[in-house]
Amino acid sequence: MDYKDLALKMHKEWHGKIEVVSRAPLNTKDDLSTAYTPGVAQPCLEIAADPEKAYTYTRKGNLVAVISDGSAVLGLGNIGGLAGMPVMEGKSILFKRFGGVDAFPICLDTQDTDEIIKTIINIAPCFGGINLEDISAPRCFEIERALIEKLDIPVFHDDQHGTAIVVLAAIINSLKLAGKKLEDISVCISGAGAAGSAICRLLLSVGVKDIIICGSKGAVYDGMEGMDSNKQELSKLTNKRKIKGPLSEAIKGADVFIGVSKGGIVTGEMIESMAANSIVFAMANPVPEIFPEEAKKHGALVVGTGRSDYPNQVNNVLAFPGIFRGALDIRAKRITEKMKIGAAYALAGLVSDSELNVDYVLPKAFDERVAPAIAKSIMQCSEDR
Amino acid sequence: MDYKDLALKMHKEWHGKIEVVSRAPLNTKDDLSTAYTPGVAQPCLEIAADPEKAYTYTRKGNLVAVISDGSAVLGLGNIGGLAGMPVMEGKSILFKRFGGVDAFPICLDTQDTDEIIKTIINIAPCFGGINLEDISAPRCFEIERALIEKLDIPVFHDDQHGTAIVVLAAIINSLKLAGKKLEDISVCISGAGAAGSAICRLLLSVGVKDIIICGSKGAVYDGMEGMDSNKQELSKLTNKRKIKGPLSEAIKGADVFIGVSKGGIVTGEMIESMAANSIVFAMANPVPEIFPEEAKKHGALVVGTGRSDYPNQVNNVLAFPGIFRGALDIRAKRITEKMKIGAAYALAGLVSDSELNVDYVLPKAFDERVAPAIAKSIMQCSEDR
Repeated sequence: MDYKDLALKMHKEWHGKIEVVSRAPLNTKDDLSTAYTPGVAQPCLEIAADPEKAYTYTRKGNLVAVISDGSAVLGLGNIGGLAGMPVMEGKSILFKRFGGVDAFPICLDTQDTDEIIKTIINIAPCFGGINLEDISAPRCFEIERALIEKLDIPVFHDDQHGTAIVVLAAIINSLKLAGKKLEDISVCISGAGAAGSAICRLLLSVGVKDIIICGSKGAVYDGMEGMDSNKQELSKLTNKRKIKGPLSEAIKGADVFIGVSKGGIVTGEMIESMAANSIVFAMANPVPEIFPEEAKKHGALVVGTGRSDYPNQVNNVLAFPGIFRGALDIRAKRITEKMKIGAAYALAGLVSDSELNVDYVLPKAFDERVAPAIAKSIMQCSEDR
Repeated sequence: MDYKDLALKMHKEWHGKIEVVSRAPLNTKDDLSTAYTPGVAQPCLEIAADPEKAYTYTRKGNLVAVISDGSAVLGLGNIGGLAGMPVMEGKSILFKRFGGVDAFPICLDTQDTDEIIKTIINIAPCFGGINLEDISAPRCFEIERALIEKLDIPVFHDDQHGTAIVVLAAIINSLKLAGKKLEDISVCISGAGAAGSAICRLLLSVGVKDIIICGSKGAVYDGMEGMDSNKQELSKLTNKRKIKGPLSEAIKGADVFIGVSKGGIVTGEMIESMAANSIVFAMANPVPEIFPEEAKKHGALVVGTGRSDYPNQVNNVLAFPGIFRGALDIRAKRITEKMKIGAAYALAGLVSDSELNVDYVLPKAFDERVAPAIAKSIMQCSEDR
């Protein structure tokens, strides 16, 4: 049975991947009186008097909403909230499996930015954190910004920051192999959506100076026509050399290529035009911008993809469980830039110098050290936030 | 330790009464590929092509949202959504324990009627049903009506219909003991909020002809000043004898008294003014309108309360788990009046004639026959809905 048929068969058997169970016994009349009426009135009164007590008496402090409008699901595009539910359920159980976080899928029936913001604010009280998922750019930026401003619990758009954190970790380790430093490299990013934009911003904040980001109309540059507000912002921060034209121009001489765009758009020649010891993360799914064997043939030193069947898989599951685990444990109100950087270094640090090689720059998904290490770094980075 | 301290201690130990767990194994790379990317794309595509498939491939068909704005919690009043969370968690685990339904608490940060309606519509896709909880009258009527109209999943305000169903079951059995028939009795209801209004409407729909409902300003009658739209509607359907004045007037000669109002407002004299073999359900919490021993002393034949420490407890847990179990199993789009009536008769029918006595007119909460019997009746009543 191929993996597609197997996935359908198993999803049907599971009949949903999440289940809501009780942490309280309900076997006797006394159990009912304690967990429900009349006993339940006591924690209610405590919380009414002091809302912080919700973290003591309810699940709030371990509960994350995985929220999507289904406008940019995986490689599937805009399939809507309901059709995205298998992904949100999947994400929810990854939260539990890797971070011990109770996560619940919320699939939205609206793709209107203001409606989404209002809806999430309205349902926020019972959650300790909000994980935004598969919401298309540039709406995702506005939604996340508004929620961070208005809510006092962490709000994290994983397609942006989760990806960016894992990519940064991969680059940190790859540069050790290439013998280069973050502040010296030039980076070419293909894809100016949620992931590309966040990767770009995170690289800037760790001191990368030379970045060109390419959208569907080629290299983004200051003064380009028809940019949305996100690209305008990026155009001021990147492309100091004012390169114009297609990806094949932008990639010339780059030390690092990061693809979060479309399968097959990078050629062997383009890899050859990069600097020596080039680093290539081609993460389009399921077909990468260039396949690893091809990139290597044309001179790339380290190659990674989004796929589990090639080395160096950039997989968000390496980041989000530990990030929320840490943020919930210290009851952080926000996931700061410093926390994201710390998480990337913590993740990179799990690959020891002796193990590090061109096919192993990132820990594996099932490496049980990952979530605790990231959670710990979140805690440390928060101390003087 | 008294029950209040015990409830606080246990809620702290539980640290939340719900937990979200995985129904899919996540131990290997293959597990990840099946439950998450890339396999998860297949059920997404199936649902995108046919939304009904969400019932096959996700938890939607077994998932109920327990939603409250915390405006009318238990005996606590308007404590807000967050403070109501222990109740919503409690309700959620009762759903699982008694009905096998996965229920998730949603505590709202708004008490604006239109906002609540919009928010619930926006998050509805992932749920197979909506249980509204502890929302104050008359807003609860408008919210429920709008949601029933706009959603194609069952929407059920338990404080209204759950209570009404259990009360109707109790009356059906009590009348057997009193030797009276539904169509002949006169009923006095104290409390014109969510529960009182729904009890009144359900009694009317099973053929009770003579009902007087009393609010805070006494008996509701056609033409009364200052009524909201709910009371206006009720005033046209009840009080044919045009009784005016306080509860002490309205209760005179009644065969049945139903209290969903305030503790201690019914006196022994008022019970004496009722018809012979009177039936008294005094359900104010925690102090009933009149205590059972007092009511009996003054001539009541059957007395019930909302408390577990007296006989004949009217407890909603007797209704909602089975109602949603049945509605989800047949994928009912609505909970019809016929289903509610059927549920009440199914519940009443579980007390056999040989067991029936003045201290046992309703099954106990832990009677495992209850939810299946109600679920079955929901199924039967739906056949020609």
